[in-house]
Amino acid sequence: MGRPQRNQQVRRELLDTGMQLLSEQGYHGTGIKEVLDRVQVPKGSFYHYFDSKEAFTAEIITDYIEGLLKLMDTQLARSTSGPRETIRHLYSLMITEFERRGCIRGCLLGNLAAEIGASSQRCQKALQDAYRNWLRRFLPLIEAGQQQGEFRDDLDATLLADLFWNHWEGGILRMKMEGHAHGLRRNLDVLLDELMAPAGK
Amino acid sequence: MGRPQRNQQVRRELLDTGMQLLSEQGYHGTGIKEVLDRVQVPKGSFYHYFDSKEAFTAEIITDYIEGLLKLMDTQLARSTSGPRETIRHLYSLMITEFERRGCIRGCLLGNLAAEIGASSQRCQKALQDAYRNWLRRFLPLIEAGQQQGEFRDDLDATLLADLFWNHWEGGILRMKMEGHAHGLRRNLDVLLDELMAPAGK
Repeated sequence: MGRPQRNQQVRRELLDTGMQLLSEQGYHGTGIKEVLDRVQVPKGSFYHYFDSKEAFTAEIITDYIEGLLKLMDTQLARSTSGPRETIRHLYSLMITEFERRGCIRGCLLGNLAAEIGASSQRCQKALQDAYRNWLRRFLPLIEAGQQQGEFRDDLDATLLADLFWNHWEGGILRMKMEGHAHGLRRNLDVLLDELMAPAGK
Repeated sequence: MGRPQRNQQVRRELLDTGMQLLSEQGYHGTGIKEVLDRVQVPKGSFYHYFDSKEAFTAEIITDYIEGLLKLMDTQLARSTSGPRETIRHLYSLMITEFERRGCIRGCLLGNLAAEIGASSQRCQKALQDAYRNWLRRFLPLIEAGQQQGEFRDDLDATLLADLFWNHWEGGILRMKMEGHAHGLRRNLDVLLDELMAPAGK
């Protein structure tokens, strides 16, 4: 394998391992040395791949949201249901994935927003971009749902999307506090079927 | 000053400093040494006051929610408005306090839930107790609001309180990501005036 290709592979492995450790241990709890040890890369070579721990984390944030958006695209392409059921199915899949991992990880974006969202400018910027990219996929679902009478249209679609995000992330914090996702699953239904529903549905 | 009283004072200072540092830097980002240095207490004496960093943090969680509940009690005793306006006033005060500190700190419970909610059993237990104590104060407000026709009563009061908490905590994550509290303030109004309002209000 040629050197550039090998470099690409190591870079990929560093990002994947970093994502896993950041999800489980947070920013301050994750040492670069631990990442390098797991990927079996010599200590000095981290800066060959990334400028700093902050730059590394910002890239992981971008990677994480891209993975999530790919999942959304796949589901959207497959879906034969209306917007509301598509959203329910997509977020139920994520809950199932949280449960599979023992409700430990939660959402990397929410975790990092809580921990360093306000203290690292570079990560803050990456988080803002991640939110905007999510919104670009999610907003058309809300708008379509409003047009089809599944969601209330007395509130702006951007506002509904915004409320959905806050709700979801707050629910994930509760999941981590409670050690199970029962509330998260129930609240997803309440959100879609009650709070976001048209009046007198 | 006698020794027990001095001990109490040092203990108090350790808890206050710990709360400040945990709020700004998170669990893993806060070293016990830093706390001790700020309070100017010799390194060895931490374990005279607390069993472990985890026990120290759990006690700070309890302290934090007690402070919040005292604020709630003061506001409730003073309030001459209905439940909805009382809640709006109380949470607006908190937003103003966030803004005063540059939207950096957020809610210690949410921060710690994100970072160690699922990994430290002792802190998880303290977070669960904190939530239950908050609910004990908040639930009567929702129930009174339902009785007075300010809040919808087609959803259970406990569920509405639950949704409010998730919403608030998710909104704080957004505040930290965005660097301002405009969305948090707007969403508080949307939540109280639209999502929690009776149908056809």
